[in-house]
Amino acid sequence: MMMENRNSVAIRYCTQCRWMLRAAWMGQELLTTFEGELAELVLQPGTGGVFEIKANDKLVWSRKDRGRFPEITELKQLIRDEIAPGKHLGHSDRKSEG
Amino acid sequence: MMMENRNSVAIRYCTQCRWMLRAAWMGQELLTTFEGELAELVLQPGTGGVFEIKANDKLVWSRKDRGRFPEITELKQLIRDEIAPGKHLGHSDRKSEG
Repeated sequence: MMMENRNSVAIRYCTQCRWMLRAAWMGQELLTTFEGELAELVLQPGTGGVFEIKANDKLVWSRKDRGRFPEITELKQLIRDEIAPGKHLGHSDRKSEG
Repeated sequence: MMMENRNSVAIRYCTQCRWMLRAAWMGQELLTTFEGELAELVLQPGTGGVFEIKANDKLVWSRKDRGRFPEITELKQLIRDEIAPGKHLGHSDRKSEG
């Protein structure tokens, strides 16, 4: 039986920049990869060029700090490290293993 | 300037039924229609055939109660009634006006 969990990932995106589709795509990737490990995926409209991703309220990505969007593979690694540290990500782990 | 708001819509969907794409699509429709009126759209994986939509913690749709999924137009009307009662929905209002 699946363990209950309270893990939450939130993606805040700038509506003016039209980043909703990107945020929703990344959200669906995370819901698929971390099925059973995520209790919720939160999409939060924002303004001013914001693109921030939090795992259980810890900021794991800020576009302003990093100067770019995350690759989906590195995003999965960052989320994995917060919510499911023992999980192997298959293809998504290869880049850092190579 | 846009008013701050704390409106939240949550969609709980059954992963076993493979309803994530449907939930995410509906979520994006709501984020688009209610841009500036929604603070967050929450996707919550569930099991056992659940498909429930809450607006500010009020249950506005349960597939088990209704026996079907909502039409996107009626869903927008239900959400509108909770979070932005004065808002006109354009095409999405026509069905009930006709």
